[in-house]
Amino acid sequence: MKQINIALLGFGTVGTGVYKLLLENSIDIEHREGLSICVKRILVRDIQKAARLQLADRSLFTLKIEDILDDPSISVVVECMGGVEPSRTYILSALSAKKSVVTANKEVISKHWHTFEQQARDSGAGLYIEATVGGGIPLLRTLTDSLQANNITRLMGIINGTTNFILTRMSEKGMSFEEALLEAQSRGYAEADPASDIEGFDATYKLSILSSLAFHTHIPVDAVYREGISSLSTSDFEAARQLGYEIKLLAIGKKAPGALVEVRVHPTMLPKTHPLAAIRGSYNAVFITGNAVGDIMLYGKGAGQLPTASSVVSDIIYACHNEGRHRHNTFRNIPDMDKDTHLVTDWESIYCIRTKVNDKPGVLSLISGVFAKHNVSLKSVLQFAQQDNSEGGQLAWITFVTHKAREKAVQSALREIDLLECTLEVESLIRVEE
Amino acid sequence: MKQINIALLGFGTVGTGVYKLLLENSIDIEHREGLSICVKRILVRDIQKAARLQLADRSLFTLKIEDILDDPSISVVVECMGGVEPSRTYILSALSAKKSVVTANKEVISKHWHTFEQQARDSGAGLYIEATVGGGIPLLRTLTDSLQANNITRLMGIINGTTNFILTRMSEKGMSFEEALLEAQSRGYAEADPASDIEGFDATYKLSILSSLAFHTHIPVDAVYREGISSLSTSDFEAARQLGYEIKLLAIGKKAPGALVEVRVHPTMLPKTHPLAAIRGSYNAVFITGNAVGDIMLYGKGAGQLPTASSVVSDIIYACHNEGRHRHNTFRNIPDMDKDTHLVTDWESIYCIRTKVNDKPGVLSLISGVFAKHNVSLKSVLQFAQQDNSEGGQLAWITFVTHKAREKAVQSALREIDLLECTLEVESLIRVEE
Repeated sequence: MKQINIALLGFGTVGTGVYKLLLENSIDIEHREGLSICVKRILVRDIQKAARLQLADRSLFTLKIEDILDDPSISVVVECMGGVEPSRTYILSALSAKKSVVTANKEVISKHWHTFEQQARDSGAGLYIEATVGGGIPLLRTLTDSLQANNITRLMGIINGTTNFILTRMSEKGMSFEEALLEAQSRGYAEADPASDIEGFDATYKLSILSSLAFHTHIPVDAVYREGISSLSTSDFEAARQLGYEIKLLAIGKKAPGALVEVRVHPTMLPKTHPLAAIRGSYNAVFITGNAVGDIMLYGKGAGQLPTASSVVSDIIYACHNEGRHRHNTFRNIPDMDKDTHLVTDWESIYCIRTKVNDKPGVLSLISGVFAKHNVSLKSVLQFAQQDNSEGGQLAWITFVTHKAREKAVQSALREIDLLECTLEVESLIRVEE
Repeated sequence: MKQINIALLGFGTVGTGVYKLLLENSIDIEHREGLSICVKRILVRDIQKAARLQLADRSLFTLKIEDILDDPSISVVVECMGGVEPSRTYILSALSAKKSVVTANKEVISKHWHTFEQQARDSGAGLYIEATVGGGIPLLRTLTDSLQANNITRLMGIINGTTNFILTRMSEKGMSFEEALLEAQSRGYAEADPASDIEGFDATYKLSILSSLAFHTHIPVDAVYREGISSLSTSDFEAARQLGYEIKLLAIGKKAPGALVEVRVHPTMLPKTHPLAAIRGSYNAVFITGNAVGDIMLYGKGAGQLPTASSVVSDIIYACHNEGRHRHNTFRNIPDMDKDTHLVTDWESIYCIRTKVNDKPGVLSLISGVFAKHNVSLKSVLQFAQQDNSEGGQLAWITFVTHKAREKAVQSALREIDLLECTLEVESLIRVEE
């Protein structure tokens, strides 16, 4: 039986989940894996508070990271704090002290992965990050350990449960964004400050990690185009319904021949028959297309104490198995993006655009003419509710769905349409995937 | 760069797929994995025929297994023949010659896995079987390598694409079983002799493998209860529609405390809102419930040349990485079933039962009385079409949906109902999962 001592950094939701799961399953892990895993130290900010949970013996808690870094009997450090600092410093120190690191912290990994990898390679320690994306769903391991024989050409994912909960409520109950957000907050799905989720930052961290592994090139977070869901209105869902679509916050990564990569997070309309359109509530799912495997989809709880702990403990088991071996199976050979890869910003998509206009004869012809001038061809035009305006005329909402068009051409067309006298507002632009 | 020579046994659909994929992706595999994999020999039954494909050089083909077994430079043998013999003999011989084996052959693995494992353990060779279940979907690796921290309590899968294609056609187009089977055959989804698929044998092989890994105990194929789909009728789908269900051929494994295991393959009604109900055509999906991860689902193409080759090549890469190491990561510590595990045959389920009766006053009360006597409580009763019988009376079809009941109690009740004078036939019994 291999005996391994580990330390936890942080004892909040994830940390206590990991502790409980290790305890609960210790006999199975000993029996099936031949490992005896002992939590020797837990770094906390407040020992009284941690002890009051009555989960772990008070003697395990410490306020000093040195008690962990300087203890040669501890070989694996599990970072469960979240945020960038002090996580970044502690992870680097642990790696340089030749301790393997397991983390669920998507923000610090997406921003400093490369530095960590370099440090891990130098010291021979392992870096395990399965829990950073998709909670308990084994997304990263599937990409690196099961789809190695594939060239991944596309991935599309619902990788933020908070926004998917809100969008499901808006779609199914006709709620406004504000109502749905309030419900998500009251159920504990959304933070008091929900910006990281609803503005799409959380999804960009995860897409950066996923697409780096899928496309074998480091994709920095700031390469990811980002739009959140806070400007979506009930009118958008009404239009989606009429067109046979659902609206999801999708993280999209595509790779074309010639190492052209596009990565973007934004509200997206999907046909109701697409497997991702059926993912409801706070569930996550990622749809992956490989040249051999075709389409596969992985689905499950993308967050939460025990699903996240499931991946963290799986990584701990990996790290323990690899302890004392020649080298850890951390991710290798992922070069920097700037070397061979070209980021596509003028991508091709289908667009669903809603305009608010003064309804006079010739308006439709005028607007369509601007699209045509910019080489944007239209697939369908729907006119929704009309109402009287204050000047005795009529307002109308016209929704245009394009064929595949280039992003920049569409944006140029919209700038020009916005300047037309008949245009009151370009109310919304939502991209469509099929 | 590690250089590994491998051999293929068989050069049919899977064998040629593996060969093509290795060739196509050789540069990526060298670059990302640090492996140079060379196919040194291919065992075939007809060299002329194999050479006519013009895929591989004629000098690679051989008719003699000894050319592979006796070649010390070959360290991995990839069995792509299917069927039990001579696969079983060749796999055993390869393992005893200390060559690792990769196989996609679910039948031989489900029937002789234990012998192979023993041999692999004795000789130190590896045994890699990801492709035996679910084509390109990484089901086995997810169970063994990603959900180690979980106790799996349930799995439910659509793991046969042929039958799912047929059932989708019956459900969506109102086809009869015979019509749908003919279409599946004409599209190449079903064999000329379709018994292995439609009678559920194929699914029992796969469930035996999946549940052995999920429940950490060898579940032999003949422990799996089996019913195929050939007796399903359009009336069954009509009833399902009215009740809000889809009918799927499900492979179900459950584990209760006390190592009580139930394993069964049979047509199953599922609520239309269940993620598995939405799996259409020849796709596969497996829904897994673990005590930490909650519900996860994996979805993709469960068969076909390239999806299967995707998993086989992934296994080849694993086997090559592990060559020359102390030991291969083959599955360990899966004890025989008879030691600690009790097979449940009197399982609990919901039942949907259709009877054909002579419609006289009191019939419903009579039949319900028999159910009650056997402790089977009814949730709903639907009476479908009536028609005149030949004796001037009326025929009626009555469908009963039970609450959860025991299998044996239901079967006893049905035997007694069958003997009632008013009963013409118990036409169908379909179990329901929720």
